[in-house]
Amino acid sequence: MAELTERGRRTRQRIVEETGRQILAAGIGGTSLDDVRAATLTSKSQLFHYFPGGKSELVRAVAEWEGAELLAAQEPHVHDLSTRSSWEAWRAALVDYYIGQGRWACPIGSLATEAAARDPELAAVVAGAFGAWADLLTAGVRRMQEAGAVRTGADPRRIAAAILSAIQGGLVLSQPLHDPWPLEAALDQALHALDAPA
Amino acid sequence: MAELTERGRRTRQRIVEETGRQILAAGIGGTSLDDVRAATLTSKSQLFHYFPGGKSELVRAVAEWEGAELLAAQEPHVHDLSTRSSWEAWRAALVDYYIGQGRWACPIGSLATEAAARDPELAAVVAGAFGAWADLLTAGVRRMQEAGAVRTGADPRRIAAAILSAIQGGLVLSQPLHDPWPLEAALDQALHALDAPA
Repeated sequence: MAELTERGRRTRQRIVEETGRQILAAGIGGTSLDDVRAATLTSKSQLFHYFPGGKSELVRAVAEWEGAELLAAQEPHVHDLSTRSSWEAWRAALVDYYIGQGRWACPIGSLATEAAARDPELAAVVAGAFGAWADLLTAGVRRMQEAGAVRTGADPRRIAAAILSAIQGGLVLSQPLHDPWPLEAALDQALHALDAPA
Repeated sequence: MAELTERGRRTRQRIVEETGRQILAAGIGGTSLDDVRAATLTSKSQLFHYFPGGKSELVRAVAEWEGAELLAAQEPHVHDLSTRSSWEAWRAALVDYYIGQGRWACPIGSLATEAAARDPELAAVVAGAFGAWADLLTAGVRRMQEAGAVRTGADPRRIAAAILSAIQGGLVLSQPLHDPWPLEAALDQALHALDAPA
């Protein structure tokens, strides 16, 4: 795409954020470009100017943006994670992002559930977002391992995947209950992997 | 609803199963009653005869049926879970149900993600399905606790929720990769709670 003016960049971003909001509330299938245009006061030609590939290109842009937002919400802790208290600060920031701010769902996890079966390009963007997140957690687990808090033979990548799964699955369980306790129980148990080796 | 004939029961069930298939592939929002009618060769009046409440009633029936199927796939192990080997047999049956049979998603978890924000009645059915599942796992964890494999002070309900979260979250991560390793890593780590107390 040609380089955007500042104003164009803001319009494009407004479209992406509104689409993300609608997807979180109604799923990809329940989100229509007409509703997005109405909510952002944009014309059909404007929308296709920014997203020539139509809805699927727009949804991929949403996935990229949500992935970046999700990592930003975990700053600065996600780049430390070298002590148990840094992990606790990270955990608190993440629970606030999901529950405190009223999302009750992971934008990336929701896209994964809806996308993987039918849109390979979107599935690749979602896998990339999970991959970037898993890399950060893996690096943190490795720091804990170097500090002696994780068994030497354990695979930091598998521990990080289990922590990420606890987040995603805890949210799936918390959402219909509208109660954070399953998310917290899952995270607590996954983080036990960081409490000194047996 | 009036009692159904055997033939009526089969037609209703065919509609429920086809809707479940379409939801798993395209989400609730991407599933249309017209597509369901076309695939099941039913008329509009037949469909509304079985589901007078329309799509939302049909989706709730799908949630109830998928919840029962999911528990059935875990038989007979899910009613034992009193030894580590019974937990391993349960784990194998479950991984086969999701991965071996090519689902790569949890029908109930997917409904939870899509439903909770916008359909409180469906969210209640989903919460009920998770609740029934969690009760079975909680009973199993309690048996392991009685056998001395779980710390006395630990709450079996929280351990069961963490195991269930590992399943749901592991699937969310496995799906876009089309690789079961995150599911297996998450389950392995969650099941460590059953390996003798510290």
